[in-house]
Amino acid sequence: MIFQVTILGTSSALPTADRYLSAQLLTFRDKNYLIDCGEGTQIQLRRFKHSFQRISKIFISHLHADHFLGLPGLLSSMSLLGRENELQIFGPKGLKEFIDTTFKVSETWLNFPVRFIETQDKFKECIYEDEHITIHSFPLFHRIACTGFLFQEKEKARKFDKKLLDKYFITPDQIIDIKNGADFHAPDGNFYPNSEITISAPPIHSYAYCSDTAPYEGLIEHIKGVDTIYHEATFTSHLSARAKETRHSTATQAAQTAKDANAKKLILGHFSTRYPDTSELVKEAQDIFPNTFAANDGESFEI
Amino acid sequence: MIFQVTILGTSSALPTADRYLSAQLLTFRDKNYLIDCGEGTQIQLRRFKHSFQRISKIFISHLHADHFLGLPGLLSSMSLLGRENELQIFGPKGLKEFIDTTFKVSETWLNFPVRFIETQDKFKECIYEDEHITIHSFPLFHRIACTGFLFQEKEKARKFDKKLLDKYFITPDQIIDIKNGADFHAPDGNFYPNSEITISAPPIHSYAYCSDTAPYEGLIEHIKGVDTIYHEATFTSHLSARAKETRHSTATQAAQTAKDANAKKLILGHFSTRYPDTSELVKEAQDIFPNTFAANDGESFEI
Repeated sequence: MIFQVTILGTSSALPTADRYLSAQLLTFRDKNYLIDCGEGTQIQLRRFKHSFQRISKIFISHLHADHFLGLPGLLSSMSLLGRENELQIFGPKGLKEFIDTTFKVSETWLNFPVRFIETQDKFKECIYEDEHITIHSFPLFHRIACTGFLFQEKEKARKFDKKLLDKYFITPDQIIDIKNGADFHAPDGNFYPNSEITISAPPIHSYAYCSDTAPYEGLIEHIKGVDTIYHEATFTSHLSARAKETRHSTATQAAQTAKDANAKKLILGHFSTRYPDTSELVKEAQDIFPNTFAANDGESFEI
Repeated sequence: MIFQVTILGTSSALPTADRYLSAQLLTFRDKNYLIDCGEGTQIQLRRFKHSFQRISKIFISHLHADHFLGLPGLLSSMSLLGRENELQIFGPKGLKEFIDTTFKVSETWLNFPVRFIETQDKFKECIYEDEHITIHSFPLFHRIACTGFLFQEKEKARKFDKKLLDKYFITPDQIIDIKNGADFHAPDGNFYPNSEITISAPPIHSYAYCSDTAPYEGLIEHIKGVDTIYHEATFTSHLSARAKETRHSTATQAAQTAKDANAKKLILGHFSTRYPDTSELVKEAQDIFPNTFAANDGESFEI
């Protein structure tokens, strides 16, 4: 089962030749989700050979220029390339007005339906769910309305241990009950608690996207226990005053959040252009949370 | 005197890894003008090491996605990098609404004034003039309102030939008159026609930007005698029906326009992504207009 994130852009505010603006492609099973869509995202998708058309949902954290300006170009290209399938776009108030205005002045009509689902930044909310995944938005603390996104694989049913069939005749309905947690009372009077006749399901995986945000009370509870966190680390601690002023995080703050949330892995991104070399940011975070990595454009991480 | 154009993007409709979307930086004397601003233009400016801030005017030909979507990101970056000088943006109706809406939803306030000058596509019009250059917009024939731009160095005064001072006392006012074309009647009765007592001014240069357009009656008179033409060549002649349908040009049509306009040099661009190798387009054009070049991202041409 594939669950991975491919980083498409890692620069904060201004693009550089090496680092484009925020965008990530999350692949879960056979679905592709795009998270944020800075200018040049369609170029990065082409460069790293990912199909535009397999993207079924797009999640926009907030409406700062470096997180959403790639959207109309990407939608235009999807249409030119023949897309017909619906695209869902989750994002804050104002996003639909921006897209509608852009396509009105450019006299663009897309060949596929777009459904906008407006997010809010007041409380954590389930914004999508199917049999395999649950997706929540949750508030971040930035200069304008901003949300993170939490992608959680659904808990799988425990597996029925077929050895029991060697001893007893068990109906299909009983097997379903056992998979759903029932114990088994055998006709011979023996009692089998569920834990003895089922096998643990494989562990579930989860991914939290936290960009852009200053640390705030309440963030941890939204992402507690997540496997992998992507967290912005715009500055090193030397610039913590600047981070506070602009409602961004330092690498230390990102690491503290990952530690407090009991995460297993931390990916840092959204780097200020003053850090062409990100090793200082990673080192600072690793002092608190050792399993930290710097995101680089084009890099993929298993979740 | 510098008069050159640097190509920033050459792909039609969709960007590729090698070819970004339409944008050019025209440098005339100490001024930089940006012509069109497809998505990723700010990335190309950085890549080819051109300052954002030296751009004083931006000219947008039309509002198809591949020609203007880089504008809000570029303006945001100019502001973040501390620009204070006014920027003038020439473009069609709708452009200001697009920019205003984008910055409204993103709660962006630029640190510098922007002045919009609306262009029209009904007739040729002088849209800017100073002591060194005249800039006209002129109608192109595309699916939506679209203009080309003609940049013409101003005719310089002929130079006064100082050898005349060895023979006669000539007042400063008389010298100005001679520079402006007057003949000289010497006190000794001799007559000197202007052409004998002045030296030719260096030749003036001019550049026409023609993208996107199908050929149409009337285009030639707008650009007659221009030195260098940039003309779109989206297709080869094999796809002339497709060119007609989408109101684009073939390489042959671009070359015929350059020939009919008595141009000295033709630069082709705005290539369909079906031509990773543009040599076929150039060869086709050279059959009609030998001094033809294909534009490549990052390449500069003297005008």
